[in-house]
Amino acid sequence: MRVFSYESLYQFVYQIFCRIGCPSSHAAVATQNLLAADLRGIDSHGIARLSGYVRLWEAGRINPTPSIRILYQTSSTATVDGDAGLGLVVASQAMQIAIQKAQQVGTGWVSVRNSNHFGIAGQYAMQALSYDMIGIAMTNASPLVAPTFSTERLLGTNPIAVAIPAGTQPPLVADFATTTAANGKLEILQRKNAQAPLGWVQDSTGKPTTDPNALKKGGALLPLGSDREHGSHKGYCLGAIVDIFSAVLSGAGYGPWAPPFVSFLPLPADPVGQGLGHFFGAMRIDAFRPVEEFKYHMDKWITRFRSAQPVEGYERVLIPGDPERETEAIRRLKGIPLNEMVVEDILQLAQKMELNPPVSVAIAH
Amino acid sequence: MRVFSYESLYQFVYQIFCRIGCPSSHAAVATQNLLAADLRGIDSHGIARLSGYVRLWEAGRINPTPSIRILYQTSSTATVDGDAGLGLVVASQAMQIAIQKAQQVGTGWVSVRNSNHFGIAGQYAMQALSYDMIGIAMTNASPLVAPTFSTERLLGTNPIAVAIPAGTQPPLVADFATTTAANGKLEILQRKNAQAPLGWVQDSTGKPTTDPNALKKGGALLPLGSDREHGSHKGYCLGAIVDIFSAVLSGAGYGPWAPPFVSFLPLPADPVGQGLGHFFGAMRIDAFRPVEEFKYHMDKWITRFRSAQPVEGYERVLIPGDPERETEAIRRLKGIPLNEMVVEDILQLAQKMELNPPVSVAIAH
Repeated sequence: MRVFSYESLYQFVYQIFCRIGCPSSHAAVATQNLLAADLRGIDSHGIARLSGYVRLWEAGRINPTPSIRILYQTSSTATVDGDAGLGLVVASQAMQIAIQKAQQVGTGWVSVRNSNHFGIAGQYAMQALSYDMIGIAMTNASPLVAPTFSTERLLGTNPIAVAIPAGTQPPLVADFATTTAANGKLEILQRKNAQAPLGWVQDSTGKPTTDPNALKKGGALLPLGSDREHGSHKGYCLGAIVDIFSAVLSGAGYGPWAPPFVSFLPLPADPVGQGLGHFFGAMRIDAFRPVEEFKYHMDKWITRFRSAQPVEGYERVLIPGDPERETEAIRRLKGIPLNEMVVEDILQLAQKMELNPPVSVAIAH
Repeated sequence: MRVFSYESLYQFVYQIFCRIGCPSSHAAVATQNLLAADLRGIDSHGIARLSGYVRLWEAGRINPTPSIRILYQTSSTATVDGDAGLGLVVASQAMQIAIQKAQQVGTGWVSVRNSNHFGIAGQYAMQALSYDMIGIAMTNASPLVAPTFSTERLLGTNPIAVAIPAGTQPPLVADFATTTAANGKLEILQRKNAQAPLGWVQDSTGKPTTDPNALKKGGALLPLGSDREHGSHKGYCLGAIVDIFSAVLSGAGYGPWAPPFVSFLPLPADPVGQGLGHFFGAMRIDAFRPVEEFKYHMDKWITRFRSAQPVEGYERVLIPGDPERETEAIRRLKGIPLNEMVVEDILQLAQKMELNPPVSVAIAH
């Protein structure tokens, strides 16, 4: 592990996005949204994916100068075409449209087609907080997940994020894949040569397995709940809802037709829509209740849950968003640790794009 | 098991609701919404709860002639006070307000306070379908669920329902508690004197247990995901979101302050809001995309998922809503089977309310 300051990673990522042709304002937004993952400890979705975005651009699948436009709209809704832009840019703009709609009529809801991977969903949900709004963000993704009883991979890890403002307490920020475990967690086990817990993945015939490499052998991630007896049909419902809100409502590629993130996999031969899809929502608190009343009760909700009696062996009961916020505070101060494979990837990217690589500030153990 | 026709149960339930003082239009709506659970095979939420509603009325906790009114509103939102009415009535009216808002501005969102148990969430989500809208319904509920790492019961089973129209295919209807298993499933095991699978409940110290009676001994239901390793923090997030949208946004009792369904438990001594809370949404399809286009792709989505290769030993991959729709078709034709405890409960209720009980058409084995 080597540790990098946020600022040095910011400079590097920003220059990469400029180098692939993004206008400077887009490069800045994309950099901020990508590195939000590294700051918040969701390492699989941050700078570790930078070279993947570059390869998508090389494959002609990312348009660095998209003309993002509204296809349909009502007072409270819009369908946005991302023009094959970086999801990191398209998502911010689409969420801003949802916020503007909410300012006008109380809530705003935006479905997006023709986009790409957008990093962490929580970042866009949190865009609503400073407006005293609840923010909602979701996206479909490359098919890696088998619905209950299926051997086929038909859904992505399809995350849902909801950010809710509070008063003196920090906001509640839920941000989670609708699978039992995210793919990034499997990758960690692969590097350690460790077994996965039963309930995370199935093999190519649909049998439970502890093999962290099962996906490479035709296996699949499992919906939240793991198996039917433990409610995997509910995780399947959640993944389906995200897929339909993000892609069927907007006109993006849905289900097994969602375009893969990795550039070496071909696009579906018989596309049903354009690119990946996202879905965003913004709800003004004062469209339901005076803001101060709501915040008083959110503080009370949060305080009550945080002070709940923990199970022996656990320090405390957490509020959604606590771990990520605490990680961000530490990493802003002490820097962002990156594992050697990610560092190597960045160094190669720097060389290829003829840029100075970021310089680490320390070695972490 | 004895089997009753839908019509005979309808007549009986309708008369009970009239007898407790509901206007006939309210009694009809309440009966239809209650029995939707029995028709769809969610037996724990139907006529099995009728005597519970009557006891709540006896305890003065249900107002049979509520004046349901809007407290706050914008073009796309409303906060509704249910005036302590039957949730079965309040929910239908609140969902209708959401639909009317959606007709005007594309989407409608309604948060409800001062209500009571509303039966199955799916029934209200499905209200939107005939308008070519997506319907969403959720509710908070009596605290029976321990957040991840907590020994305390702070959340209800807090269900989420989403109904999505299709073209020639039947609609997709997801309707699920945000726990691994619903309380009704534990009750079935209690009657059989059988053990629960690990991952459904914990004991009073927070340890996993197979005791189906654990809740009576201070234990708790577990959020979807069962334990931290299998994503219970995600089920906890879902339960929290439902609680906040339904109760903090509206001004109902939230978290451990949600009023209990059973009339023998006291109401919280230090209430933070009024009654139970619900949350409803309606989104016009044509606010995002031409309806025919959307329905074409929903049909394609449904057909593709339904034709997925099943795991050996399973007949087919299901679409959310398939099992309930198939059960309803059978029960409308052949009648609704009720177990002897429920039949006994109905007979006692008939005697107490001086009404003729429904007459069974057959004995089922």
